[in-house]
Amino acid sequence: MNLKEPLPMTQNIYDDPTFFQGYSQLGRSVGGLDAAPEWPALQALLPPMHDLRVLDLGCGYGWFSRWASEHGARQVLGLDVSEKMLATARASTSAPNIDYQRADLEHLSLPSLSFDLAYSSLALHYIKDLSGLFAQVYGALVPGARLVFSIEHPIFMAPRNPGWQVDAQGHKSWPLDSYQREGERVTHWLAEGVIKQHRTLGTLLNTLIDTGFNLRHVQEWGPTAQQVEDLPALAEEQERPMLLLVAAQR
Amino acid sequence: MNLKEPLPMTQNIYDDPTFFQGYSQLGRSVGGLDAAPEWPALQALLPPMHDLRVLDLGCGYGWFSRWASEHGARQVLGLDVSEKMLATARASTSAPNIDYQRADLEHLSLPSLSFDLAYSSLALHYIKDLSGLFAQVYGALVPGARLVFSIEHPIFMAPRNPGWQVDAQGHKSWPLDSYQREGERVTHWLAEGVIKQHRTLGTLLNTLIDTGFNLRHVQEWGPTAQQVEDLPALAEEQERPMLLLVAAQR
Repeated sequence: MNLKEPLPMTQNIYDDPTFFQGYSQLGRSVGGLDAAPEWPALQALLPPMHDLRVLDLGCGYGWFSRWASEHGARQVLGLDVSEKMLATARASTSAPNIDYQRADLEHLSLPSLSFDLAYSSLALHYIKDLSGLFAQVYGALVPGARLVFSIEHPIFMAPRNPGWQVDAQGHKSWPLDSYQREGERVTHWLAEGVIKQHRTLGTLLNTLIDTGFNLRHVQEWGPTAQQVEDLPALAEEQERPMLLLVAAQR
Repeated sequence: MNLKEPLPMTQNIYDDPTFFQGYSQLGRSVGGLDAAPEWPALQALLPPMHDLRVLDLGCGYGWFSRWASEHGARQVLGLDVSEKMLATARASTSAPNIDYQRADLEHLSLPSLSFDLAYSSLALHYIKDLSGLFAQVYGALVPGARLVFSIEHPIFMAPRNPGWQVDAQGHKSWPLDSYQREGERVTHWLAEGVIKQHRTLGTLLNTLIDTGFNLRHVQEWGPTAQQVEDLPALAEEQERPMLLLVAAQR
């Protein structure tokens, strides 16, 4: 065994050329936070940014890190495993209080009691050792600080065939199965063989609780009536939750 | 308006002759707690009964009230809206520390700081004003006391057509839709027109949090491997959660 071999990393699908190419063209990649329909709901779970030390887990292009900086955060540390995304993030700002670093969220080592807010958007469903990551984040936050994140909803991730079924009347339903079978889900989204980690909603919440967090809000995101009126394609998101938003407090 | 008219009650389906006849023949009606496959998991969320003052919300035949009394509870108050079930419950025990009373959980008025444990099995999905009920229960519990309950899982309750779909290979899936549309669900289970209240899992948990409860455990119940081996019909319960178990603390 080569002792210099690094720890096994999370699948770094964002540096896969096909995936990156597809991802970079998504609405939320081009348009940022305002192009993500769940952003208003996620934002409502955040404390005022003024003077906060913010940790952005899976910062991607850095949309949130920049937003936090522009809204008064004292200091922002954005972490991501993707070199390509970090390069874009770094090129998109000259704010001196944002620091982007490459890090694998599976093997994080964070300084204790150093952050007032931890944030993560759609990254945690790639993490295998979520218990370990939550413990790191808990230790890195000061008492009273919040962890606010979005994650793919387990209902969305669980099925063997995660796609709509449409009946003769045009009604859509989501064929849920395999819900209790936790573990890897391999999907073909933008590229072949994207690996995600399915765990039940109960397991996710209990992992937070057992780490010591207090749950403050759990939201299975769905579009508002106004959002559906503005963008009718969002209507199907009322049939089953695709995203889960969570606010927890140390 | 007749001022003497009582408050509008929850649908008292358990006193419907057809429903009662069907319900009285269910495994869990005949065999009690041990015939309910979720009981071991629910029991694991309970504190030791010794010397507790216990509130049993929707006590039905009184299986849990008797169990609590037999396991050392100091005092048990079992509440139910069904006269028929209370009659059976009363006839099934001579324990002097169990009191069964008729009550509509929609319009409960409980004494403050009078209970060490509140318990409810599969009753809360009938309740429209869950926020009001949780506030009553919170006020009735002493600080540190637990509320432990089971409820139909919103995934089970939400769909327009809540039944398995079976594909050509014999795989079962649960056609989830209408998840974000909270409110009444009318089903035909044992009798026509049984009314239940669908709310998302997020709404349920936030109602507890906003009442002041701390969430201690959230379990989307599924059978153990041993349970499936003993009773193969339970295998389908691994595909989607039917029941939700929650432990919260005042």
